[in-house]
Amino acid sequence: MAQKIKLSTIAESLGLSTATISLALRDSPLVAADTRERIKEQARAMGYIYNRRAASLRTSRSGIIGVVVHDIMNPFYGEILKAIEGELDRRSHTFILSNHYDSVEKQRSFIEMLLQLGGDGVIMSPAIGTPPEDVALAENNNMPAILIARSMEGGDLPTFRGDDSYGISLATNHLISLGHRTIAMVGGTEQTSTGRDRYQGYVNALRKAGMEVDPALRIQGPRGKQAGFEAAMEFLSLPQKPTAAVCWNDLVAIGFMNGIARAGLVAGRDISVTGYDDLEEASIATPALTTVWNGQEEVGRLAARALLDKLGGSHEPDGLHLIKPEMRIRQSTGPVKPRT
Amino acid sequence: MAQKIKLSTIAESLGLSTATISLALRDSPLVAADTRERIKEQARAMGYIYNRRAASLRTSRSGIIGVVVHDIMNPFYGEILKAIEGELDRRSHTFILSNHYDSVEKQRSFIEMLLQLGGDGVIMSPAIGTPPEDVALAENNNMPAILIARSMEGGDLPTFRGDDSYGISLATNHLISLGHRTIAMVGGTEQTSTGRDRYQGYVNALRKAGMEVDPALRIQGPRGKQAGFEAAMEFLSLPQKPTAAVCWNDLVAIGFMNGIARAGLVAGRDISVTGYDDLEEASIATPALTTVWNGQEEVGRLAARALLDKLGGSHEPDGLHLIKPEMRIRQSTGPVKPRT
Repeated sequence: MAQKIKLSTIAESLGLSTATISLALRDSPLVAADTRERIKEQARAMGYIYNRRAASLRTSRSGIIGVVVHDIMNPFYGEILKAIEGELDRRSHTFILSNHYDSVEKQRSFIEMLLQLGGDGVIMSPAIGTPPEDVALAENNNMPAILIARSMEGGDLPTFRGDDSYGISLATNHLISLGHRTIAMVGGTEQTSTGRDRYQGYVNALRKAGMEVDPALRIQGPRGKQAGFEAAMEFLSLPQKPTAAVCWNDLVAIGFMNGIARAGLVAGRDISVTGYDDLEEASIATPALTTVWNGQEEVGRLAARALLDKLGGSHEPDGLHLIKPEMRIRQSTGPVKPRT
Repeated sequence: MAQKIKLSTIAESLGLSTATISLALRDSPLVAADTRERIKEQARAMGYIYNRRAASLRTSRSGIIGVVVHDIMNPFYGEILKAIEGELDRRSHTFILSNHYDSVEKQRSFIEMLLQLGGDGVIMSPAIGTPPEDVALAENNNMPAILIARSMEGGDLPTFRGDDSYGISLATNHLISLGHRTIAMVGGTEQTSTGRDRYQGYVNALRKAGMEVDPALRIQGPRGKQAGFEAAMEFLSLPQKPTAAVCWNDLVAIGFMNGIARAGLVAGRDISVTGYDDLEEASIATPALTTVWNGQEEVGRLAARALLDKLGGSHEPDGLHLIKPEMRIRQSTGPVKPRT
């Protein structure tokens, strides 16, 4: 059963990487000549039989997966990425990563580069305004694409994301149940499915509770901490005197809580604040943030699996795979207290 | 002067990317046949003369730079990366990115992959325990390496980072000037140059002020928010009752401030806290964090320039390039107040 010896076993016995072993057995000049000899000797000693045909089948795929998202500094994408990494690691794939900062041009350059490098597939959170041709460029060149976090219009690609409309309705209902009747929505943009769906979920929840929807209570735009911090001033000067803020994500909520703190107000006591995502730092924020778990890990894990299965020849169902969000109640929300 | 027409001019006139134009003019099958024809026609119409020799000279370099750091989710690296990106963008290079999480194995795989892809160079914050051979692998294959953030033993590669020992002495001196006499150091590890140098700078500052150094006042380990949060409990139970904490970085400091807040204590009033890095969020934290500016942008910009200059044939001086840190005094530090 000599064929059962794996590259990783040889690698371990020599304290080298599997990639080095593989390169050496293919006589790559990237490995120093004496190391190459040492590896071959060890491989022979361990009874490894080099199967050229299997190797060529294996290397007809590069083992490289591209991942491109809006901004990897956003821990929301960071947490998805960790899950993708874990899954690819287990199946011996490497990923390369890039930001598109919602520039269609940057995203296209990345896809083109990935094609030139012989990438196996791409996982992407599509940039605002992505034309279907850009994703078709990948698909038509035998490089399947999987979407995460955002849906894209005009396509039926496998898409993994949370159910944004349902999730934000959980947060809104929680605030209504605490007696809040003037609730603002802070952050997000009409240009992404996430922004549209979350605003719609907030509107739906208010209507279902028989409450009026005041468009002036929407503070559009903020998507990060700094902008959330600045939005607090705008919120505090609204003539409707809202008592609660449904924030578009945790970053906005954490920035917002820091913003109202500058005015001497405490989230959960003076103003109720909800986040969205349940990032790692939501639970250590002061006060601990009430938020909606958005299944980042699930999204990453399922997207990576779907891509690898597709590369392996399985038929993954196309279309939208929604992860069901869950409420996490902590200290940043409390019973309504009228603004003075 | 037909030769002066640039690819980017043709790209702009057609609303396509420069990469697509370049591929089409080289007859790449990656561009659809009719688009290819349309591009060639436009190029002819604009008087573009395709210079095969210049093209081949140009493409003997791939235009791809690899960047590998401990964890790109850490905004410290994120801010460095943004500066690298900006610099590479201006000079028409693309970067691909990976995390090594301080695994020498992961870092080596990335370098090997980059070599196989024909990468032009690599910018890295070396993983703990990186053997010089791994960097030599890149250098010997004509792929220059530049180090950022951390120094590496046993080499003389161009290295760009802040002066850690000097920077932390600024923070320590600031606390001493406020009357603090029992100052703990929270976070960092002996395994990186950053960890060793910052501890040494703290020790030096105490000694210079004639204060005793108590090793039990060092809480080693924490490098992120969660760990900083947990360290607060350890700090509060120290029998020496320290009145101030010099934190290893801003993430630890922000987690730490949230941790003491759980015990009803406010940074800057009850306990003085300093950070390190001056991340974007330091100034919006509650209270706003007193910290040391670590020159992330400078590090990224200078490292990218040094690499591009080296690729362009300039002789960049090897060895260590230190950026001089600066103190940023905000609200998280104040006059000493004895612990009860």
